[in-house]
Amino acid sequence: MKMDLNSDLGESLGAWRMGDDAAMLDIVSSANVACGFHAGDAAGILRTLREAKARNVVVGAHVAYRDLVGFGRRNMDVDSADLVADVIYQIGALQGLAKAAGTEVHYVKPHGALYNTIAHDARQARDVITALREVDDRLVLVALAGSPLIGWARDAGLRVVAEAFADRAYTPTGTLVSRREKGAVLHDSALIAERMLRLVSDGVIEAVDGSQVRIGADSICVHGDSPDAVAIARQVRQRFEQAGVTIESFAAQPVAA
Amino acid sequence: MKMDLNSDLGESLGAWRMGDDAAMLDIVSSANVACGFHAGDAAGILRTLREAKARNVVVGAHVAYRDLVGFGRRNMDVDSADLVADVIYQIGALQGLAKAAGTEVHYVKPHGALYNTIAHDARQARDVITALREVDDRLVLVALAGSPLIGWARDAGLRVVAEAFADRAYTPTGTLVSRREKGAVLHDSALIAERMLRLVSDGVIEAVDGSQVRIGADSICVHGDSPDAVAIARQVRQRFEQAGVTIESFAAQPVAA
Amino acid sequence: MKMDLNSDLGESLGAWRMGDDAAMLDIVSSANVACGFHAGDAAGILRTLREAKARNVVVGAHVAYRDLVGFGRRNMDVDSADLVADVIYQIGALQGLAKAAGTEVHYVKPHGALYNTIAHDARQARDVITALREVDDRLVLVALAGSPLIGWARDAGLRVVAEAFADRAYTPTGTLVSRREKGAVLHDSALIAERMLRLVSDGVIEAVDGSQVRIGADSICVHGDSPDAVAIARQVRQRFEQAGVTIESFAAQPVAA
Amino acid sequence: MKMDLNSDLGESLGAWRMGDDAAMLDIVSSANVACGFHAGDAAGILRTLREAKARNVVVGAHVAYRDLVGFGRRNMDVDSADLVADVIYQIGALQGLAKAAGTEVHYVKPHGALYNTIAHDARQARDVITALREVDDRLVLVALAGSPLIGWARDAGLRVVAEAFADRAYTPTGTLVSRREKGAVLHDSALIAERMLRLVSDGVIEAVDGSQVRIGADSICVHGDSPDAVAIARQVRQRFEQAGVTIESFAAQPVAA
Repeated sequence: MKMDLNSDLGESLGAWRMGDDAAMLDIVSSANVACGFHAGDAAGILRTLREAKARNVVVGAHVAYRDLVGFGRRNMDVDSADLVADVIYQIGALQGLAKAAGTEVHYVKPHGALYNTIAHDARQARDVITALREVDDRLVLVALAGSPLIGWARDAGLRVVAEAFADRAYTPTGTLVSRREKGAVLHDSALIAERMLRLVSDGVIEAVDGSQVRIGADSICVHGDSPDAVAIARQVRQRFEQAGVTIESFAAQPVAA
Repeated sequence: MKMDLNSDLGESLGAWRMGDDAAMLDIVSSANVACGFHAGDAAGILRTLREAKARNVVVGAHVAYRDLVGFGRRNMDVDSADLVADVIYQIGALQGLAKAAGTEVHYVKPHGALYNTIAHDARQARDVITALREVDDRLVLVALAGSPLIGWARDAGLRVVAEAFADRAYTPTGTLVSRREKGAVLHDSALIAERMLRLVSDGVIEAVDGSQVRIGADSICVHGDSPDAVAIARQVRQRFEQAGVTIESFAAQPVAA
Repeated sequence: MKMDLNSDLGESLGAWRMGDDAAMLDIVSSANVACGFHAGDAAGILRTLREAKARNVVVGAHVAYRDLVGFGRRNMDVDSADLVADVIYQIGALQGLAKAAGTEVHYVKPHGALYNTIAHDARQARDVITALREVDDRLVLVALAGSPLIGWARDAGLRVVAEAFADRAYTPTGTLVSRREKGAVLHDSALIAERMLRLVSDGVIEAVDGSQVRIGADSICVHGDSPDAVAIARQVRQRFEQAGVTIESFAAQPVAA
Repeated sequence: MKMDLNSDLGESLGAWRMGDDAAMLDIVSSANVACGFHAGDAAGILRTLREAKARNVVVGAHVAYRDLVGFGRRNMDVDSADLVADVIYQIGALQGLAKAAGTEVHYVKPHGALYNTIAHDARQARDVITALREVDDRLVLVALAGSPLIGWARDAGLRVVAEAFADRAYTPTGTLVSRREKGAVLHDSALIAERMLRLVSDGVIEAVDGSQVRIGADSICVHGDSPDAVAIARQVRQRFEQAGVTIESFAAQPVAA
């Protein structure tokens, strides 16, 4: 058994620090690196890429709406010409920095509001898919497990990786419980680790109503906004290692030139 | 005889238009395309790149300080870690968009205050040189003719193209007359065309004191901030064609992968 | 009979020019001045304010979402804490510049997507209303004629001015025809002038189906995105003057300290 | 004996936190609040202003170059028209938010590179002085003790407060030891507290060579970039209280309307 663990990294901005990239890079197999639109300045991104390279962590572009103050978490009605080009711009910028760091961009994971929107919005989904194909159709798209985006992207010829979230509660139909509802975010790292192990071994997760829901996940996001993000990620990794689950990127086999 | 003509393009921003890219692309052989730091949004840059591709105009990255309001014309004391990474980021972003447009980035021309600063400032010059080498050491650097930058970049192993300015007056030592002085900017397009033809045929230009100064130029920038930019560029091109000078990019032979 | 004519001004940004502020200021009685979020840099805004002062044109704050590249025209899901504070920030900034220009801010007209959203979205409307009241409850709010916003703002104790658009087609129920539909934007300046005169004299406008619709308007926006904006505005003013309609700001009587 | 303690606050940006504003507001008598150009989003600034108001801490505008990524610490060659207007814009924005918070802006303290530049650069100093006078000539300017700026601002009719830095080493001529030199920044909070008490009681401070240098300071900046900023500030306050020095703002008597 093996599983990919991913985390959002490179999210500092100038004098402002965010997260503990070095600690996370010792845990995860894939790093979703900010591209400057929701977070990340070029020098900080380059440092994170060099640290990822040093640990053989696979790198992806964490593309977002252009919204630093809102951290890319606010829905924006970006038209197609802009959205396609904005995503290409960000991927290209990260590819340039990755080249300088001696590594390369293997996948794209949209961030925040863009991630949530394209999970179900066909127009913006198509724009992101177009962007990936125009830059390099070998780029893998990381998408919410169970979302229509997965089918749309596969139909367009992209390789897609379905993602589950370690610290989030699920509904009986396999969608995420909205952050606006109580209990949407889990904090008990031991419980989280058990849930994720169950997901890897049996492909199921317990929903908020106690029912078992089937989730087809190729990668687990261990990033959380809580201060315990690193502790949770570490516990998931340890539990996986104890149970003989190999932590390995879905892109262990290079897919991008 | 042949000569490259270059111009600054892709400098619109969202709802704000600047310049007539389509008209300029019918005249020049090389397009210095904005990368988003001093001008250019991704969708507009992509449009310009597609128009450049359609006309077989060679594309370069017009990298700049991060300063939209100042249009990259204000000196900024950017430290080396930031400057190196900022330049890589911009080149990468343009490479991504160029790939989507079916073309590629052959050269880098720093813009505005960055251009002027690295012409003589060894530290910032080294940072820009480092950036090019880390992304792709086949990228050509466009530098002010006669400036120390040319030697620094060649010593670092880069291919360098020396540039003259069509609409600028020169001092007897071959430097540009400061814009703060009267007569620094030329407006008579017929005179400009003659001066540039003389530069191509004899390698000399008449300085403000009437003396002849030798300028080794591989490319002529026909971009000006004046409203007559297109008219001047067109006249230079026509005069060159009459005189049998071929307008051809220095990068007619592909140099970047 | 009298009527206010307003226009969007101060929308240049650094090296990018937009509109002909000087020409418009000779025509209108109220200037909606950009505050830096969708357009306008501080020096350009200050210039426009000084020109408005010189012509005795009343000044309002043209507040917007923080979105330069999208020119404030893209819907953004800004939460209440941010929206209230962003609007206050913009009004305050313009008040500071207005003080330096020897004038003052009399009203607030939200711009673009924010304008359209608060016309019917109760939550964002409440945020903008709160912002005005927290800065100065004598500030007048300019709102779309016939929209629920007018009642919400009046209920909150604000003075409200209802606005019609010179160059837009109206539906039989008095709403604007969506820009996505054909014929939404009018270009015939003579026709536009007649329609606006009819609006002033009879309080009605002809809808797209030929029916007469009653519009209660205290101000007419003569700003359009078309290149003929100035020509249309001038013709409306001339037609009004011929017909004895006085062009006068709704804020001719100072309402803000 | 009494002395003002000031600190830089409101420097978070969206999702990025910086400093512990609540803790610092329990210690200082004056809060230099970011205005959005080097740091601070409107909602965060408003929160800080409300916290300052709740503790009766006097508020000043911490104006800066427009440079979020560089945190306003990079020298920028901003021309006079821009610099004057940028400073007015920031003061106005903070005045608007201060009004909403039930407080007012009493003083202006330039930040970072702007602070250091105007301490000795006559042109940029004049621009900042002009900005204050155009908004409200009762605004107090906080300036580096011993710098020529103090005389320039007083000659222009401004009230000026001279500032010393708690955690910085001084040269024998009373200037700050450059951060580039070893020992420029002090970390021993007990030593710092003693030095500042000596400054208050005797008007002298021990320079790096052991000599005593006379510093005329009306305010002490207890803000530092080090993680111990709060601890140092607290110790200075405690030492002052033990010694009978009253912590009181120089603007205890309102000076701005």
